Amino acid sequence: MSDEFSRIARYFAPLAGEEGLGLANDAAVLKPPPGRELVLTVDQMLEGVHFLSGDDPALIARKLLRRNLSDLAAMGAVPMGYLLTTALPAGLPEAWLAGFAAGLAEDQKLYGISLYGGDSSSARRDISLSATLLGHVAPGTALSRGGAQPGDEIWVTGTIGDASLGLKARFGELTDPTGYLTQRSLLPEPRVGLALAGIVSAAIDVSDGLLQDLGHICRVSGVGAVIAAEAVPVSPQAAAFGADMLEARLTDGDDYELVVTVPPKHAGALKSACGALPITRIGHIVAGVGVEVHNEAGKTLRFGKAGWQHF
Amino acid sequence: MSDEFSRIARYFAPLAGEEGLGLANDAAVLKPPPGRELVLTVDQMLEGVHFLSGDDPALIARKLLRRNLSDLAAMGAVPMGYLLTTALPAGLPEAWLAGFAAGLAEDQKLYGISLYGGDSSSARRDISLSATLLGHVAPGTALSRGGAQPGDEIWVTGTIGDASLGLKARFGELTDPTGYLTQRSLLPEPRVGLALAGIVSAAIDVSDGLLQDLGHICRVSGVGAVIAAEAVPVSPQAAAFGADMLEARLTDGDDYELVVTVPPKHAGALKSACGALPITRIGHIVAGVGVEVHNEAGKTLRFGKAGWQHF
Repeated sequence: MSDEFSRIARYFAPLAGEEGLGLANDAAVLKPPPGRELVLTVDQMLEGVHFLSGDDPALIARKLLRRNLSDLAAMGAVPMGYLLTTALPAGLPEAWLAGFAAGLAEDQKLYGISLYGGDSSSARRDISLSATLLGHVAPGTALSRGGAQPGDEIWVTGTIGDASLGLKARFGELTDPTGYLTQRSLLPEPRVGLALAGIVSAAIDVSDGLLQDLGHICRVSGVGAVIAAEAVPVSPQAAAFGADMLEARLTDGDDYELVVTVPPKHAGALKSACGALPITRIGHIVAGVGVEVHNEAGKTLRFGKAGWQHF
Repeated sequence: MSDEFSRIARYFAPLAGEEGLGLANDAAVLKPPPGRELVLTVDQMLEGVHFLSGDDPALIARKLLRRNLSDLAAMGAVPMGYLLTTALPAGLPEAWLAGFAAGLAEDQKLYGISLYGGDSSSARRDISLSATLLGHVAPGTALSRGGAQPGDEIWVTGTIGDASLGLKARFGELTDPTGYLTQRSLLPEPRVGLALAGIVSAAIDVSDGLLQDLGHICRVSGVGAVIAAEAVPVSPQAAAFGADMLEARLTDGDDYELVVTVPPKHAGALKSACGALPITRIGHIVAGVGVEVHNEAGKTLRFGKAGWQHF
């Protein structure tokens, strides 16, 4: 590979916004958007944990940005830009970096964000990546996990469980003839740009599993939730695997859909705010603790886990 | 180890500022200081690259913050807070995390910063850490690498080369009877809080080696530099190793001192701004390119490398 400073000049400097000062300084300088609050989030992508060693570097780059964009979406923030860290083992071919930078460039354009700065390092063995995303909201309007009230309805965008089955397909555990499930696993679609402030009482993105992430809303809000298993939206491709995959769909995560709670009177406004994006009511908030899943007969289903945790 | 969410609640939530929302949401929310620009930087610390596997986790935490604080210092920014990523292998004892969090807490207090948010992950093998630091400056006053002019003097804070020799001592390549050099390697002192705006024409912190980092100023400013080897400030502990260690002292880095360029008429103001912190003139900026090092006889010295690069 070319040397560290040549790599920065060649692959990363073209991605930099004016805040990045050409990546020629110790730090970035940002004029905060007047009268707005900043929203800040960071996520990692590690080889062998969040992606497989042979994965397409452009898709790794895009998923790194999109996981963070999904966190901004869950706060109702408008994305602005990001800082990046890369730690790469010495044997990595330069084509990997070219592909990675091309993926960043593609999603920068798609989401209207730019690179502010970063840090590049050698790694002893595994590739290790992180991105810190910045966005902004009108003061006091950031969505949170803490506002759900008994009686609120629970809604979820898109479909849940595709990424779980897509990962299984990548491991050869099931077949994905159209490639749709695999695509959903490799390239999530963060639900940025929805104007949900003043409509929803709580929001979170589904990264670690629907049940676990809804559980976070319940814990922080001090409430419980009841959802109907058959109401959870499922793509035709995932539905083909039937009830056997229900637990995987509800608990594996990596969906990057939004789960929100809304007072019933705001359900219409919620649907309007989502426009063409499908959003589905899956249950309601109750007094109590935890998340209950009911089947069509009204029986409570039990699962071995609520969602993904890092050991 | 305890589970992921218990670890966050136990070790990291107590470190969070109000911007962190109790680490109970997808992202942090920050009200930017009115009328200020934000300065943003990120640095990594990787096991086997930036620290050794058995190193004290409290010192790893503090160096992680201090490397970033030094970048803010090089921009003249006042530190505010940070986002943290941790990727930890499954076998790591919980005491490691307790020590790491204690180190963060100590330096948060010392530097007046708080935790805004972060991401924790399992790692397949090596520990991988990063921190994104935020600071602020008055609009238009961020220091840069780009303003050095021929005729400017070159000054450096503190002493250069201690960390290089400290690392050699840790590897048993030399002796460090007082432990001073080792301490300088493990726990650098970022030069935050100096009011250098309007005084210096360019600034950088010495992370990758004095010659290489001064070279960055030259490249971005479009100038050259001449420094006198014997003028580069050296601690008594490092001076004891004599001229044999000159190249290591000037090129290994990890010093986290500041190198600044100043018009001669501002030299007095520079010394006043540094107060009790020693600052030493080591050379001057010239028309041309690159950094020349002269010995006492005026001869140009040649070294095998200018500084540290990641492969």
